[in-house]
Amino acid sequence: MKSEIIAVGSEMLTPHRQDTNSLYLTEKLNSIGVTVAFKTIVGDRRKDLVNAIRGALGRVDIVLLMGGLGPTEDDLTREAVAESLSLTLRRDATQVAALHARAASWRITIPPNNLKQADVLEGATLLQNANGSAPGQFLDTTFSGYRKLVFLIPGPPHECKALFDEECLPRLRALVPPRHIATRTLKLAMIPESQADKLAAPVYAQFADVETTILAHTGDITLTLQCGKPTLEAAQARVAELAGKLEEVLEEWLYSSEGESLEQIVLYCLGLRQATLAVAESCTGGMVAERITSVPGSSRSFLGGAVVYSDALKTAFAGVPAELIEKHGAVSEEAARALAEGIRQRTGATLGLGVTGIAGPTGATERKPVGLVHFAVADAQKTDVLERTFRGDRQRVREWATQQALDLVRRKLV
Amino acid sequence: MKSEIIAVGSEMLTPHRQDTNSLYLTEKLNSIGVTVAFKTIVGDRRKDLVNAIRGALGRVDIVLLMGGLGPTEDDLTREAVAESLSLTLRRDATQVAALHARAASWRITIPPNNLKQADVLEGATLLQNANGSAPGQFLDTTFSGYRKLVFLIPGPPHECKALFDEECLPRLRALVPPRHIATRTLKLAMIPESQADKLAAPVYAQFADVETTILAHTGDITLTLQCGKPTLEAAQARVAELAGKLEEVLEEWLYSSEGESLEQIVLYCLGLRQATLAVAESCTGGMVAERITSVPGSSRSFLGGAVVYSDALKTAFAGVPAELIEKHGAVSEEAARALAEGIRQRTGATLGLGVTGIAGPTGATERKPVGLVHFAVADAQKTDVLERTFRGDRQRVREWATQQALDLVRRKLV
Repeated sequence: MKSEIIAVGSEMLTPHRQDTNSLYLTEKLNSIGVTVAFKTIVGDRRKDLVNAIRGALGRVDIVLLMGGLGPTEDDLTREAVAESLSLTLRRDATQVAALHARAASWRITIPPNNLKQADVLEGATLLQNANGSAPGQFLDTTFSGYRKLVFLIPGPPHECKALFDEECLPRLRALVPPRHIATRTLKLAMIPESQADKLAAPVYAQFADVETTILAHTGDITLTLQCGKPTLEAAQARVAELAGKLEEVLEEWLYSSEGESLEQIVLYCLGLRQATLAVAESCTGGMVAERITSVPGSSRSFLGGAVVYSDALKTAFAGVPAELIEKHGAVSEEAARALAEGIRQRTGATLGLGVTGIAGPTGATERKPVGLVHFAVADAQKTDVLERTFRGDRQRVREWATQQALDLVRRKLV
Repeated sequence: MKSEIIAVGSEMLTPHRQDTNSLYLTEKLNSIGVTVAFKTIVGDRRKDLVNAIRGALGRVDIVLLMGGLGPTEDDLTREAVAESLSLTLRRDATQVAALHARAASWRITIPPNNLKQADVLEGATLLQNANGSAPGQFLDTTFSGYRKLVFLIPGPPHECKALFDEECLPRLRALVPPRHIATRTLKLAMIPESQADKLAAPVYAQFADVETTILAHTGDITLTLQCGKPTLEAAQARVAELAGKLEEVLEEWLYSSEGESLEQIVLYCLGLRQATLAVAESCTGGMVAERITSVPGSSRSFLGGAVVYSDALKTAFAGVPAELIEKHGAVSEEAARALAEGIRQRTGATLGLGVTGIAGPTGATERKPVGLVHFAVADAQKTDVLERTFRGDRQRVREWATQQALDLVRRKLV
C-alpha cells in the first residue's frame, strides 16, 4: 500500500526549519511493508491545506497528516480535513473535560479558543496523546469511491513519535497485508564513511535481497540491513548471514550489532566490569557528560566530572599543576594526561577521561591548529593517550571529539 | 507570487535521506519576495511525477523541480514535464556535441542512453550547468489559461545551488514584481505556547500584512514576523511597529528581539557586566555547559563547572556538606543553593548556578516526582532559588531544566 506524509506548518516552509518527523514515520511504515510515495510540506493556510489533502487522497491509500492540531488560530488541520472530506466537526464533551482537568493540574485556566483541540471529525477514532493535550484522530473512510485511511498526528516530535507507535502502527498493522521484515543495525565508530563503504560494498552487493544503507554522522556509522520475506525466520536468517560477513570485515571499528549508541555501549562495558567513570573535559564543554547522562540509569557507572573551561579550573578540579600548563600549554598530551589522572584521583573513579583541544574558530597558534584535540584515559595501571586533528566548524570539532573520547573509553574497556 | 519546490528522487523517501537543497532555494526565493507555499518530495516513478507536477501547476505560479535530470533510466523529470504540459521533447544537436566533448575530456565514450540529457522541452530555454553534464531548463508557459514559470534544476547540491543562483534567480528577478521583505525574530523563554499565542494573537491579528509564525521548542518560543512591501523602508517600519507592540505584551518573557539564542544572550549579559559564570549541574548532566560552550568565545565569561552526578562529587566539587544531602536529599532547595554557592566559591566566578533534579525514568520518591528540579543562582549578595516540575521523558525533562537554568541566570543579570 502507498502512503503520503503531509507535514503541516508554515515554519517548515522557511529557510530555517525542516520536517524531520517524516524520517521516523517512514522507517516504521517501511517496516510493515507500507511505502511512502510522496511527502508534502504545506503551511498553515486552510486553502493550501485542503488542496494538499485532496491531492493526497487522490493518489495514495494512506494519508498521514502531522501538525496543526494545537490550540492556536493557525492550527487548521482538523478543519481542513473536515472540508476536504465534507465531514462535520463536533466538540467532544469528554475531551473538553480532559482539557480542563489537564489545565487544572497545571493550576491554570484554559482559554476558550484552546477548546478547539476537543473538536472531533465525524466518524473518527480518537488517538490518545500521552505527551500533549491535542489527541490524534483516525478515519477509515472513502474518497471518490476508494477506501482511504487518514491519520491526524500532532506535530511536536516527542508527541508525534509516541502517538504514531502506540496508536497508529497497531491499527495499520491490522489493516495492511502482512509481510515479514527483519532488520539488523551495525554501528561503527571513527572510520571514514568512504572506507566503511569500500570494505562493506563487496559483501553486501552479494545480498541483493537485503536492503543495506549506510548513514554517517560525525564519526558514527550506522549500517542498516533490512530484508522482507514470506516468513520471519527466512528474513532473519538472511539478515544474520549478511551481518556475520560484515562484522568480519568491519570488526576493527564495530561497537554494536544491535543498534545501541556508543554511550550505551560504554555504560554497558563499565557495568560489566563494575567500573566507574569520571571526566574532565575542556573543548567539548560538557558534551561527553551530556551524552553519557542521556542514558537512563547512567548514574550507576558515571560519577560525573568537571567542565574545565578555564585553566584555573583545570587546576582546581583535576589537579593539573599550573606549571604544567605554563610549560606545555592547556592543549597538550601532558595536560590531557594530567586531566585524566587528576579527575580519576579526585573522584575515586575506576577510569578517568581527559579531553582538551581547540574547538575554534579562534584559539589556534602556529603549532596548534583549530581542531587539534588531545585525549587521555587513565586507569590504575596505565594512561592511554591520543592526538587527533578534526576538520570543520566549532560544532563539528566538538562532536567529533566527543565521539572519539567515548570510543577511547570503550577501547580501554574491551 | 507563490512557488512550489518539487524534489525528485526515491532516495528522499527513505528513512535515511532528506531534501536539503530546498532550504537554500527558499532563502533565495524569499529574498526576492517569492513565497514557498508547498514543498513536495516524489520518487522516480513517472506516474507519480506527473501527478505531482500537475498538482503544483494547479496551485502555484512558479514550479521548481530539482533532480531527475541525470543520464540513467530513472531520471524522468524531462519526460514527466513534457507529459504534464503536453509538450514534445527534441534532442538538441549542440547539447549532444557538448556531451561528447565533455566525455572526451574525461577520456571516456558516452553510452547512447546518456544522450537523453540533451533532450530539450518544446519552448524551453536551456540553463547552463557549470558543475555537471545535465543542463537545466526554463519554461515560461501556460496551464489551464494561467501563466506558469517552470524551472528544471539538477539535483546534486553543488550543481543545484550554482545553477539556481546564476541562471534562475536573474530570470525570476526580472519576472517577479519587485517586493522588499523585512523580518524580525522575537524570542521568549519559559512561557507556554498557548499563553504566548493568547497574548500575541490579538496584536498580530491587526497586522494582516505581516506574516507571524509561532514556533515552540521546550521552553523556547520563536515569533517570526515577515512583511513584504514595495520599499524596504515601508516593510521595516511595519515589522518594527508590530514588534514594538508584541514586545509590550510579552515583555515578561522576551529575551531577544533579534533572534539570538538564550545562551548567546546569557553570555552577552555576562560580558556587559564583566561577570563570569560557573555551573554545578546534576540532572542536566552537562547540558547547561554544553549549550553555553557551543557559542564561540564563551570562554571569556564561562569558567566551566562540575557535572556532579554522584552525591560524593556534589561534596568534592561544590562543597555541599554530606550532612545537608543526608538531611534534605540531593534533590532539594538546600542542595541547589549549596551547589550554586559552593561552585561560585570554588571557582571564583561572579555567578554560580546549581541544578539538581530527577530526570527519570527512575529515582522518584513519594514526595519527589520525576521531573522535579531545584535551581539556584548565587552572586555575592544573594542566592535566588526556584522549584519546577517538568513533564515528559528523561530527554524532555533535561531540556526543559537546561532552558530554565539559562533563563534564571539571564533574569539574575538583567
